[in-house]
Amino acid sequence: MDTTALLSQQVDGPLVPTTIHRRDLRPDDLDVVVRYCGVCHSDLHALHTPPEQGGTFPLVPGHEFVGEVVAVGEAVIEFRPGDSVAVGNIVDSCGECRMCLAGQENFCEQFPTLTYGGRDRHDGTITQGAYANRYIVRDRFAYHLPASLDPAGVAPLMCAGITVWEPLRAAGVGPGTRLGVVGLGGLGHLAVRFGAALGATVTVFTTSSAKSDDARALGASAVVVSTDATAMQGQRGNLDVILDTVAVEHDLAPYLHALDLDGTLFSIGYLGPVTVQTTDLLVGRKRLASAGSGGRQHTQEMLDFCARHGLIADVEVLPSSSIATALDRLASNDVRYRFVLDLNDLRSAGTDEHR
Amino acid sequence: MDTTALLSQQVDGPLVPTTIHRRDLRPDDLDVVVRYCGVCHSDLHALHTPPEQGGTFPLVPGHEFVGEVVAVGEAVIEFRPGDSVAVGNIVDSCGECRMCLAGQENFCEQFPTLTYGGRDRHDGTITQGAYANRYIVRDRFAYHLPASLDPAGVAPLMCAGITVWEPLRAAGVGPGTRLGVVGLGGLGHLAVRFGAALGATVTVFTTSSAKSDDARALGASAVVVSTDATAMQGQRGNLDVILDTVAVEHDLAPYLHALDLDGTLFSIGYLGPVTVQTTDLLVGRKRLASAGSGGRQHTQEMLDFCARHGLIADVEVLPSSSIATALDRLASNDVRYRFVLDLNDLRSAGTDEHR
Repeated sequence: MDTTALLSQQVDGPLVPTTIHRRDLRPDDLDVVVRYCGVCHSDLHALHTPPEQGGTFPLVPGHEFVGEVVAVGEAVIEFRPGDSVAVGNIVDSCGECRMCLAGQENFCEQFPTLTYGGRDRHDGTITQGAYANRYIVRDRFAYHLPASLDPAGVAPLMCAGITVWEPLRAAGVGPGTRLGVVGLGGLGHLAVRFGAALGATVTVFTTSSAKSDDARALGASAVVVSTDATAMQGQRGNLDVILDTVAVEHDLAPYLHALDLDGTLFSIGYLGPVTVQTTDLLVGRKRLASAGSGGRQHTQEMLDFCARHGLIADVEVLPSSSIATALDRLASNDVRYRFVLDLNDLRSAGTDEHR
Repeated sequence: MDTTALLSQQVDGPLVPTTIHRRDLRPDDLDVVVRYCGVCHSDLHALHTPPEQGGTFPLVPGHEFVGEVVAVGEAVIEFRPGDSVAVGNIVDSCGECRMCLAGQENFCEQFPTLTYGGRDRHDGTITQGAYANRYIVRDRFAYHLPASLDPAGVAPLMCAGITVWEPLRAAGVGPGTRLGVVGLGGLGHLAVRFGAALGATVTVFTTSSAKSDDARALGASAVVVSTDATAMQGQRGNLDVILDTVAVEHDLAPYLHALDLDGTLFSIGYLGPVTVQTTDLLVGRKRLASAGSGGRQHTQEMLDFCARHGLIADVEVLPSSSIATALDRLASNDVRYRFVLDLNDLRSAGTDEHR
């Protein structure tokens, strides 16, 4: 099948509506018409990563999306045409290693197949993402979209949402937990919302005091401007768990100091080398951790939790033709709090088999 | 009171028997005749740290010792003359902060008073350590020496022992835990012994295959030569908790890779900046932690555990006149596994009020 997708031919190239090929349905595949797809920092990163640093082109980004099933393979039981589904950044895994068996397909020892830029386990082709009309996905990696939630607001849950859900769950955040969230962007705003819904007392650290009202509206009970040394000093030992969602390298020491005995700092926004002083971990016996994405079981658990509490991401929905604007604004952090592309309008190439 | 102590007048200076002054007994003080004192890496570090980097001279090292109470202050209830006691690297704390109230006097927010190089909370003098005939210690920071254990082997438990006990306890190491111990020195050999006694399966990582038999004798069930890349690769995902006791900077990545899902690496041998790749923490949701020393409650708990299991450090007892040899050999890791000074012979200055 051919479909229309926003494709970049080379590093730093523009995303242009282009016809691409999708595989024929395998027995356990779903054919999904993409409705909404979140714009993730990873997309920005992938578009600007040259091949010599691991970039893969041509590239169609997009790995947090919702859509509607239009056809299913012969072995599919869980889904049928007409079902609304959500898909995240993983579309396959070996299913046999201990991580897969533990429900952590995101850590598959044979490496999970990524939604774009991954290598398909059957035909070896490079996967292309969901900035497209259609996506073919293995049934195990699609989730039923909770009917009560706005689909556009669910899309970012599939990457940003699960990325904050995993450390919250692993750290046992719940009633009584004193949770800190550093940075109030795509990840951060969901961390605040989830943390508050879990019963935690949430403190937001932000460089911008202008975000104070927003933070409180999301569920924070305190806001600390991280450039205010006195305010930071006042936070010493105040928190049990911190999710640091800042995407650029920065000093973690002030946040380690804000942890109480046996506290844990999850660095989930920045990928790269992180340096800490041993003594900042030693005093108070603190832990530096990270987390990324999640497995099937926890993704479903998160969606159930969001449905129960009526939680979605705060999104700004843009037509797919505005992708360049979305990426530019995301690069300068000008978004509250996640862009979502409306792909219902991406029909120009006219090559899709519409229903 | 005057006492004889091994004192260095300046950085890198020799330790020379010298008469120093000890305070008069306060109501809650014990006057202790020092019998054995362990030689800790910290002592080496303190002797070689110039004042401009925080070194304090004149200096008497020694912060893991056992001895006999010869007099007690008027308010002391727990101890009486004739009691055998053990003392570690902390001799006082504020007693009021949340860390002290949580039983973690080692993390006292007003900073614990160190056994040497600390500042006394009452008279402001700099504390001098237990390479000496006598030590005056507040009763709260002395512990009854288990009668069944060899006193010389108990001395190192008070610093090396509690330093490995704390992370083992905090990580819940017990039957079924797959524990890794990196480095087989003063800390490492106790980590293996404690881990095995707690019921864990212990794997030792060492650069020296010659230590293999020793490691197994201490309780390890596997030994991996850390310079063998193939052997290290074979350890991927095999362990729940790792105690890294190596005192010099080194790459932590191979050990993070050896952790399974939600595993924790405690870096307890090296103090300084540590750099890790976020992805090495992210994949498998691993934690980097540290720990150091312990509070009163856990120190007593460790001594009780050692008494119950008949555990002490493997020590090489040297006369106090051999301190220079001990420090030289310690600097080149030529010790199995802890030097202990016999201070019974340090009587030359003849200024002590012997019993």
